[in-house]
Amino acid sequence: MIKRKDIPEIDTGVVGLGLMGSSIAAALLIAGHPVKGVAPISSDMEQALPRITKQLKHAEQSGLLKYSLSHYLGQLSLSEDFGILKNCRLVQECVVETTSIKSEVYRKITASTRKETVISSNTSAIPISILQEEVPYPERFLGIHWAEPAYLTRFLEITKGAKTADKPANWVFELAHFWDKEPTFLQKDIRGFVTNRLMYAVYREAFHLIELGEADIEDVDKSFRYDAGSWITYMGLIKRMDMLGLADFGVALKRLFPQLSNSTQVPSIMKKMVEEEARGVQNALGLYPYTKEEAVEWEQAFAEFNKEIYRLAKEIPSLQPYK
Amino acid sequence: MIKRKDIPEIDTGVVGLGLMGSSIAAALLIAGHPVKGVAPISSDMEQALPRITKQLKHAEQSGLLKYSLSHYLGQLSLSEDFGILKNCRLVQECVVETTSIKSEVYRKITASTRKETVISSNTSAIPISILQEEVPYPERFLGIHWAEPAYLTRFLEITKGAKTADKPANWVFELAHFWDKEPTFLQKDIRGFVTNRLMYAVYREAFHLIELGEADIEDVDKSFRYDAGSWITYMGLIKRMDMLGLADFGVALKRLFPQLSNSTQVPSIMKKMVEEEARGVQNALGLYPYTKEEAVEWEQAFAEFNKEIYRLAKEIPSLQPYK
Repeated sequence: MIKRKDIPEIDTGVVGLGLMGSSIAAALLIAGHPVKGVAPISSDMEQALPRITKQLKHAEQSGLLKYSLSHYLGQLSLSEDFGILKNCRLVQECVVETTSIKSEVYRKITASTRKETVISSNTSAIPISILQEEVPYPERFLGIHWAEPAYLTRFLEITKGAKTADKPANWVFELAHFWDKEPTFLQKDIRGFVTNRLMYAVYREAFHLIELGEADIEDVDKSFRYDAGSWITYMGLIKRMDMLGLADFGVALKRLFPQLSNSTQVPSIMKKMVEEEARGVQNALGLYPYTKEEAVEWEQAFAEFNKEIYRLAKEIPSLQPYK
Repeated sequence: MIKRKDIPEIDTGVVGLGLMGSSIAAALLIAGHPVKGVAPISSDMEQALPRITKQLKHAEQSGLLKYSLSHYLGQLSLSEDFGILKNCRLVQECVVETTSIKSEVYRKITASTRKETVISSNTSAIPISILQEEVPYPERFLGIHWAEPAYLTRFLEITKGAKTADKPANWVFELAHFWDKEPTFLQKDIRGFVTNRLMYAVYREAFHLIELGEADIEDVDKSFRYDAGSWITYMGLIKRMDMLGLADFGVALKRLFPQLSNSTQVPSIMKKMVEEEARGVQNALGLYPYTKEEAVEWEQAFAEFNKEIYRLAKEIPSLQPYK
């Protein structure tokens, strides 16, 4: 049984300090853990501290910090050397989605830590059961999948691989409640996890309608922003049916399921984006037209939105109170 | 070209004053229209005034009313008699999803109004092109699909049927911007419209994972609440890809599409609900367990959430500014 007062004694590590890794480091600092950050890429090492500082300031503006900014920064150590991870009880890997690179990272983590150290991956692309094979004592390996910004969403997806033992998985699940998350806990390692599976089902149908010319990208986005967006944070998908009274869904599912796309092909609009090396707001070339200024404005306004939606999400009833 | 000052001169009608019809009446009142409400069912006639009053109060608490509550109620007339619709330029039908009943309603609307009166249906189940066949002068008929609560979301889906003329459809699209909506405007009448198509694609995958035991209903809801829920109101679905940088989606779509459910069957869990006459929060029997008190609490807390998310949705950048 973990207690609140234990948290500052539990050292955590984050390997890979890109946007997501930095954001996870910020989340763990805010939760009260000492954080050891390892940047296997030198450029990340330079950017990590300013980036984490910026994220902590955003958290401060959002009312998430109990102590001063310098207190949290005092709990953070950054290095290119994996030796810094020595006393960590949990190390979160957050590097690119390439098995060979992750494998090398796991080798370095395990060489620097004890065999009881729990190792987790933020992967959303590679099955946990496959990554696990790259790790000595694979029973202590599992998936911890965060959403961006990690310190400002309640989302966390904990996934066991085929060889993950109950003990480390249950420990992480318990620990995650001290991070102010409402984690899902997947006992089986399914392809794409839950979130991606659900979202890609929407993407498949959306691109199908767009390719048929039955809707344009603005129509798709307006629908999701203003219909789903007006209730999804409150009630999710299944509870929505209960709230609407359930009665019509039997008929509606029967009528609509056969109409839906079963495509297995990458939509042509997305193939075109890949060929053009479009990076959306990052290079002002995307599915929408942008100027560089507009791209920056969207990102800034989103930081403000994050703050507000997180506050809302914290006020709504929990689906499964943690005892 | 419609001007703000014209709105109080444009009489609107709503036929069918259940939860949704009342909510649409409230939305039209708030926009500044005189509203003539017709209740074809006597029990709706009794409940309509208290329900609309309650909805207007909710709107007032949400800061949406420019004038006093009594001003808006003064713009509302309710009757069981279709004759009240005489001078309406737009009549919104909002009765049960049964073609024969709607057909009878259209007969009564057209008998009481001029042939130029635009008639719209809130249907989400029956194609506009089919309903249109039940209406004399079908070129003035179209779909206007609202989300609940109609006065407190920015969602509106305008759909042309095969015979709908441009003029009334463009007029409604223009008018809807005075209702504080960001409407989608579908030139083709597709089965399930955009919103339902997208949502049912998610439902198909969600029930697939639940039936396989790979996720439970709480997992599905937590994923949607805290992942999608943390960004969807801000950026919708397609803009999301731009915001994430697009690069990984080509590979991810290719990998995940073949994993998704292509089921055309009603999920067994939903069949069971239909057999048990489960009505979710309405009879405290649903996909989740509820006490009656809990069901009431969820509904009340949602009214509060609505207010907040609407405020957030109004602050975010528009996808397609209306000129």
